[in-house]
Amino acid sequence: MDSGFTPSARPGMTPVGNPVLVEVLRGGLVESRHAGSIAVADAAGKRVLSLGDVERPVYPRSAVKALQALPLVESGAADLYGLTPDMLALACASHSGEPGHVETAGKMLKQAGLDVSALQCGTHWPIHQPSVHALAREGGAASALHNNCSGKHAGFLCTACALDADRSHYTQPAHPVQRLVRHTLESLTGVPLSQDDCAVDGCSVPTWAVPLTSLARAFARFGSGVNLSPDRAKAAARLRAACAAHPWHVGGTERFCTRIMERFGARIFVKTGAEGVYCAALPEQGLGVAIKCDDGAGRAAEVAMAATLLRLARSITDYGALEPFTRVTLRNWNGIAVGEIRPTAAITAAALPKT
Amino acid sequence: MDSGFTPSARPGMTPVGNPVLVEVLRGGLVESRHAGSIAVADAAGKRVLSLGDVERPVYPRSAVKALQALPLVESGAADLYGLTPDMLALACASHSGEPGHVETAGKMLKQAGLDVSALQCGTHWPIHQPSVHALAREGGAASALHNNCSGKHAGFLCTACALDADRSHYTQPAHPVQRLVRHTLESLTGVPLSQDDCAVDGCSVPTWAVPLTSLARAFARFGSGVNLSPDRAKAAARLRAACAAHPWHVGGTERFCTRIMERFGARIFVKTGAEGVYCAALPEQGLGVAIKCDDGAGRAAEVAMAATLLRLARSITDYGALEPFTRVTLRNWNGIAVGEIRPTAAITAAALPKT
Repeated sequence: MDSGFTPSARPGMTPVGNPVLVEVLRGGLVESRHAGSIAVADAAGKRVLSLGDVERPVYPRSAVKALQALPLVESGAADLYGLTPDMLALACASHSGEPGHVETAGKMLKQAGLDVSALQCGTHWPIHQPSVHALAREGGAASALHNNCSGKHAGFLCTACALDADRSHYTQPAHPVQRLVRHTLESLTGVPLSQDDCAVDGCSVPTWAVPLTSLARAFARFGSGVNLSPDRAKAAARLRAACAAHPWHVGGTERFCTRIMERFGARIFVKTGAEGVYCAALPEQGLGVAIKCDDGAGRAAEVAMAATLLRLARSITDYGALEPFTRVTLRNWNGIAVGEIRPTAAITAAALPKT
Repeated sequence: MDSGFTPSARPGMTPVGNPVLVEVLRGGLVESRHAGSIAVADAAGKRVLSLGDVERPVYPRSAVKALQALPLVESGAADLYGLTPDMLALACASHSGEPGHVETAGKMLKQAGLDVSALQCGTHWPIHQPSVHALAREGGAASALHNNCSGKHAGFLCTACALDADRSHYTQPAHPVQRLVRHTLESLTGVPLSQDDCAVDGCSVPTWAVPLTSLARAFARFGSGVNLSPDRAKAAARLRAACAAHPWHVGGTERFCTRIMERFGARIFVKTGAEGVYCAALPEQGLGVAIKCDDGAGRAAEVAMAATLLRLARSITDYGALEPFTRVTLRNWNGIAVGEIRPTAAITAAALPKT
């Protein structure tokens, strides 16, 4: 069983004793607990909240898809191929592979003269289980269009076509599209990205590790346009508007990102990443949020994000609508309420600057 | 969104700074890390290894299914209804819902004059994804037989029938079957179980929290027969032999429990539980193992178990076959090796008594 993977963890990457952010109750006991770190910053990088180690490099994974989509707009590809707002939302998405997502990804490719065979994200069955059952029932099979990253990849391919660049190596770090993405991330995070910080993501594109504080700053800039060039601010606003108008395309049925953006529209942008990463932007407050659960648990990252947003969003009149997302009831296979996922005082009682 | 769940976490159940047992690498960095605790003890309760807090009560969940199955044998129900070894293995199983598992559970019920309608474990689609696709493709739907606990529940029902007890409330703590289970757990763990330690499991039966040390001792007794009555030692040996002969029935295709027992037969008994719990017995060494990952991650519990067994099983001539289970290569959707799950020095360099 040769792994094919050569581990080379750098020294100094030892655990740091991050606080428990979220706990899982069952009966009268805390059954499981999730530690992690949270950074909230403004566009200048000023820290508003900092829990745990926020300086350790973290792979943002899919949480930065909206930033990775900026070159799609800035290159002119989105206009050249007539991409509609739902398509731009899908370019920022980790979608659930429901029929509407698959159809939209297919259209994006078609408008650039391509088809599913151009996608290099790999194949997996839909995240949305009823869609799995329906697909199998009709004798279908998973394709690259069902991959949660197919919209992002369709966006990369549109960008490659608009740049008249090669379409068969668009996932490689040296490809013009990934170089644009890298420069965009460097500019937004303020962090120079080195090859040492680069790993391969689930869909084969590079993922660049950056500190949570820098990610938070990047999302503050993405959300507010502050400290961005006018063209980039305009591109960011266009992507945010697309996601706010089409939140179902950013996630899918019952997904956290979708439910939050359905409820709050353009006032909260939020995006999940693999391994317990979550990022958000609060445009009205000029803040960005970046969360990493040490153990990679999405269930904890969602509750931590909801609880963090609830602390930050008090200037939004209906911010109380965030509250139900901070406490998730666990039900067993008979529908009996057996437990709950909830934030700890590390988040709910964290000191915030007076505003 | 009223939860229906009233949290009542007892004071003093705060996190304890357990060591990181397992880390997840991607590229050159540790991307995620899993803390937890490990207890290894003999049948007298003597500790052989102790990492982290091993005295905090932990819900063992499905990791104790083999102990929950002892009354099935001891009551005479297994003989009365002619249960074969594969059926006894299924009574100890968290199976993947593959066709063979479903068929075996159905037979167990039939031999006691019952059918699927008697099961109160609830319904979920198979864990085994190709079985999900096949089931949907043929127009089928999930039933209680696909529930990973259907074998355990069929065993409970056989026991209820043999005791001539009510069959409609067999999941309730006060039911004769669950009282037998509770007394069995108390006897094996040496811990009196109070209602305060009881929660509802995923399949609606009680799960009783006990310290990891007590769970380890229980599995040392279950594996060796030491400190058990002759009848109980015989019942335990019969269940162990059934699982060793039919490891596929204890888990399923590609499952960790199944692969370990397929490789090591009666020399290692191992069983997963929800929320990062894992238990094992090493009959030849007279040892029991109990692991809990703080965050509930099964991927970490498996690697921690393999690494712990590798440390303990040196008197097994082919113990090196455990090594590949201690390092799991992570591949992305294109099959590229992008990372690895591996144990930390907390396990691999832990001090063990000289033997």
